[in-house]
Amino acid sequence: MRELTGKPIADRITAELMPKIAALTERGNTPCLGILRVGENEDDLAYERAVLSRFHAAGATVRVTALPDDVTQDELEESLQNMNGDKTVHGILILRPLPPSIDEARVCVLLAPEKDVDGMTDASLARVFRGDRDAFPPCTAAAVMELAHGYGIDFAGKRVTLVGRSLVVGRPLLLLLLAEHATVTVCHTKTADLAAACRGAEIVISCAGKAGLIGENALSDGQTVLDVGMNAAPDGTLCGDVDRTAAERHAAALTPVPRGIGSVTASVLLRHTVEAAEKKE
Amino acid sequence: MRELTGKPIADRITAELMPKIAALTERGNTPCLGILRVGENEDDLAYERAVLSRFHAAGATVRVTALPDDVTQDELEESLQNMNGDKTVHGILILRPLPPSIDEARVCVLLAPEKDVDGMTDASLARVFRGDRDAFPPCTAAAVMELAHGYGIDFAGKRVTLVGRSLVVGRPLLLLLLAEHATVTVCHTKTADLAAACRGAEIVISCAGKAGLIGENALSDGQTVLDVGMNAAPDGTLCGDVDRTAAERHAAALTPVPRGIGSVTASVLLRHTVEAAEKKE
Repeated sequence: MRELTGKPIADRITAELMPKIAALTERGNTPCLGILRVGENEDDLAYERAVLSRFHAAGATVRVTALPDDVTQDELEESLQNMNGDKTVHGILILRPLPPSIDEARVCVLLAPEKDVDGMTDASLARVFRGDRDAFPPCTAAAVMELAHGYGIDFAGKRVTLVGRSLVVGRPLLLLLLAEHATVTVCHTKTADLAAACRGAEIVISCAGKAGLIGENALSDGQTVLDVGMNAAPDGTLCGDVDRTAAERHAAALTPVPRGIGSVTASVLLRHTVEAAEKKE
Repeated sequence: MRELTGKPIADRITAELMPKIAALTERGNTPCLGILRVGENEDDLAYERAVLSRFHAAGATVRVTALPDDVTQDELEESLQNMNGDKTVHGILILRPLPPSIDEARVCVLLAPEKDVDGMTDASLARVFRGDRDAFPPCTAAAVMELAHGYGIDFAGKRVTLVGRSLVVGRPLLLLLLAEHATVTVCHTKTADLAAACRGAEIVISCAGKAGLIGENALSDGQTVLDVGMNAAPDGTLCGDVDRTAAERHAAALTPVPRGIGSVTASVLLRHTVEAAEKKE
């Protein structure tokens, strides 16, 4: 079974972007991402570190606005408005979920659409829906497509079973797959026979967030399996949605978790930020 | 085979809306749809007549702004802005496609989102994408769901094959089906084995716009078949995407064309217009 690791793809994306970043910098327009973080959630911090490292290695900048857990709606909105108005910030990433005391939908509405590099706003969702090639889809969904392209996986005419229909991953991914001419079957918690729907596919993509969901009876020989799940196993280690042992018996190719799709996300964010900087010129 | 005709469903929707329309009228707020039409395309005129008849029968009003074929972009946009600003107009329907000389996307952007009763704007598409129950999806996609509900068809957990992925019907319908927990397979011109994908479904919905596309080998016994196609047969009569003779041999239920889903669309438009009027109060 071929291991489809994320790092070579992430590195290739970065290498491709570096001359563009250098050219933008020469014109006094270094691509800059503003991160808006509330509190110190460990998942947020881990992603922030990955983003900082990826951006800095490529010559792009990141400015983090870290707000306390008990920030008010008004204070948070003011910080966002400052980033919206700052001409040196090209993209904005709001780390979510925000605390329950914050009205997340109201915050998302305020985000300047041209800086929405993680596909949160209505304008971005509508563009993804339309199949607009200029859209910034949510980075995890886009990372699945980038990884697949990097390994030469062609979706056109293929039977793809997609497990999961979340707003942030499943649904945008569904539209990206349709735009690349896949024949997509979307499964979820209400699907009567998930295993059969997966077995019949040439490519299985799981973004359900449930360890072990895609097991022996859901896999068939020669499949390509893209695992977008990111779950904590009982022993505290990270794992995906796919039973790795079963996949090793059947699949032709599998993205590992960790070191798979998750490793590509920060590079996609970099790509979107560079494109936002280029559009601004 | 059961015939799922549209008229009883359309009549039921109208009957349900009439007391609401009467109550709004009593408060001086009669639901009013503004139609913006360019030229005198026969398809547009036919739909306009169906809408006028449905609205008038229910006590709602329609105001048609008919512009000449050679209208300029500026003139068209001015007419739309007038409708946007007119407080007595609750919903706006722009008959499309507009002539090639007009930038349709620029027109759509101007439409006031709260009057967008046919799901054309970014805001409407994003709401459909989010699964927001307050959304106004494009009327034909919504009509499929209304007809199905009217005949007690439950999508939850069902294998549904959807043929067609257009922006106006296929994609919004896909999201509406997902929101009702169907396991949806989306097929299109690039699908390798369309017949097999249809045969394996419990419910087949075709909105491809190709006469005879769903034939004998795409159908299996006991299926429910919803035909959203609207095609001119060689002899000039209207027909759907489904081979009616084959469907009669296999399907448990079929929507006819004409007199099927197309008959429900104007009632959905009425429902959206009444809801827009209620929201404005």
